Amino acid sequence: MKLMRIGAPGAETPAVLAHDGRVYALSGVAAEIDGAFLASGGVRRARDALARGALPVLEAAGPRIGAPVARPGKVVCVGLNYRDHAAETGAAVPERPVVFMKDPSTVVGPYDRVLIPRGSAKTDWEVELAVVIGREARYLASPAEAAGHIAGYAVSNDVSEREFQLEYSAQWDLGKSCETFNPLGPWLVTADEVADPQSLGLRLAVNGETRQDGNTKNMIFGVAYLVWYLSQYMVLRPGDIINTGTPAGVALGLPGTPYLREGDMVELSIDGLGTQRQTFNNA
Amino acid sequence: MKLMRIGAPGAETPAVLAHDGRVYALSGVAAEIDGAFLASGGVRRARDALARGALPVLEAAGPRIGAPVARPGKVVCVGLNYRDHAAETGAAVPERPVVFMKDPSTVVGPYDRVLIPRGSAKTDWEVELAVVIGREARYLASPAEAAGHIAGYAVSNDVSEREFQLEYSAQWDLGKSCETFNPLGPWLVTADEVADPQSLGLRLAVNGETRQDGNTKNMIFGVAYLVWYLSQYMVLRPGDIINTGTPAGVALGLPGTPYLREGDMVELSIDGLGTQRQTFNNA
Repeated sequence: MKLMRIGAPGAETPAVLAHDGRVYALSGVAAEIDGAFLASGGVRRARDALARGALPVLEAAGPRIGAPVARPGKVVCVGLNYRDHAAETGAAVPERPVVFMKDPSTVVGPYDRVLIPRGSAKTDWEVELAVVIGREARYLASPAEAAGHIAGYAVSNDVSEREFQLEYSAQWDLGKSCETFNPLGPWLVTADEVADPQSLGLRLAVNGETRQDGNTKNMIFGVAYLVWYLSQYMVLRPGDIINTGTPAGVALGLPGTPYLREGDMVELSIDGLGTQRQTFNNA
Repeated sequence: MKLMRIGAPGAETPAVLAHDGRVYALSGVAAEIDGAFLASGGVRRARDALARGALPVLEAAGPRIGAPVARPGKVVCVGLNYRDHAAETGAAVPERPVVFMKDPSTVVGPYDRVLIPRGSAKTDWEVELAVVIGREARYLASPAEAAGHIAGYAVSNDVSEREFQLEYSAQWDLGKSCETFNPLGPWLVTADEVADPQSLGLRLAVNGETRQDGNTKNMIFGVAYLVWYLSQYMVLRPGDIINTGTPAGVALGLPGTPYLREGDMVELSIDGLGTQRQTFNNA
């Protein structure tokens, strides 16, 4: 099932994109797709309502698509989690996951405009597989338990300002937390529809030119390991997002470091999870 | 005015501690003290209601005090922001604020039990002045504008696990985001009651032994500068918390590194902002 939120920012309506290609309104089942929805069996309720034909088709001509999860409690990011990306940034392959955070209010819709911060010369892209937590995860006994805590997956653009991230201090969060820096979606694809999260192609193009073309099979720490690992140090709650790292091909690692400029168009996709497209504009 | 939240976790009621020493129920004015309350002039409404005698005394025998702000959108932390603390940790005095984040769900009440994470050998304390944002701050023109965006101040214990923070990767958030790692309160003291946030004594004792005894006048980057600085890189929203750094005297910097153990009692206070007290127990 593909869950989504449709409407103006702050006024999105929950919906389902069904296998028949139609979008059905979920507003009769839930007010929102958020942590409370996921924690309370909302996915099951939505599936049941869809199966018994209880959801009306959503009549909407070209409305905005919002992020598929409202108000995530936190966005946890894993850095340098693909060998080729670690190499291109000149970093060693980490022995443990490199964990940092972004401001969760950076999460925006998959086609929303992304703002290049004032004073930025090094705004960069990062296509990533986002994991959406569906059930509280606290001291999981093993990575095998992770699956029971994952609601699903989404495409994420972990937009980064490299000067703020890498040159202003040794801590990365500042360059990860700028306004609009985390387009998410278009859908939350429920975990049952993702046969193997470690065999998904990810790609990203800037102005039509392919820049990233990777596969989640090349993650250093896989999804189940990450959920287990993080649960040893923090409580993962329903609606939380984990950005699981990006493959090679970011501007920081490319010849000439072609950082994003006013008007650039970034398009990114992951197998089965859909496509995002953002225009970058100066803030 | 001292705003507070009283009641069981997740079921707190908003209240005011007035100058007459009584606690008045705010529930007729607002359902919660949170970002929406602060953004919508809630402080003014509470003050008006208190002044005209419209608030009932809250009848409650020894109830729990919760964190004074519900569901902060983010907790931004500033590292190494006192010269003596930078020195004790062996770090250089930073040229720019060192900015990192903690999971906002770590915020708990000022007298709540704090959990020593499983596998932890280096759980440490940090008394800090917390700034609570009252109005959105985005690209402020100067530090002089910061005051108009600050709702008030609170005591914060930026609890830290030094092995997770410093030894597992170069990014600190993992060791800052463990469950219950951010006691906040007892009160949100509105900014009008804090004559000068840069002349507040802060102190912390462990099992009755003074460990930290500093003053906010020794911050490297002051409150107004920090709010202005952060607003250049992220949007500060009502209800967001900034932990402004800790003075010398943390376990990491003390002879014998006396990290916290099961049953230890930590008491911390800031002039005019009240006192916290936590017992530390193994998770």
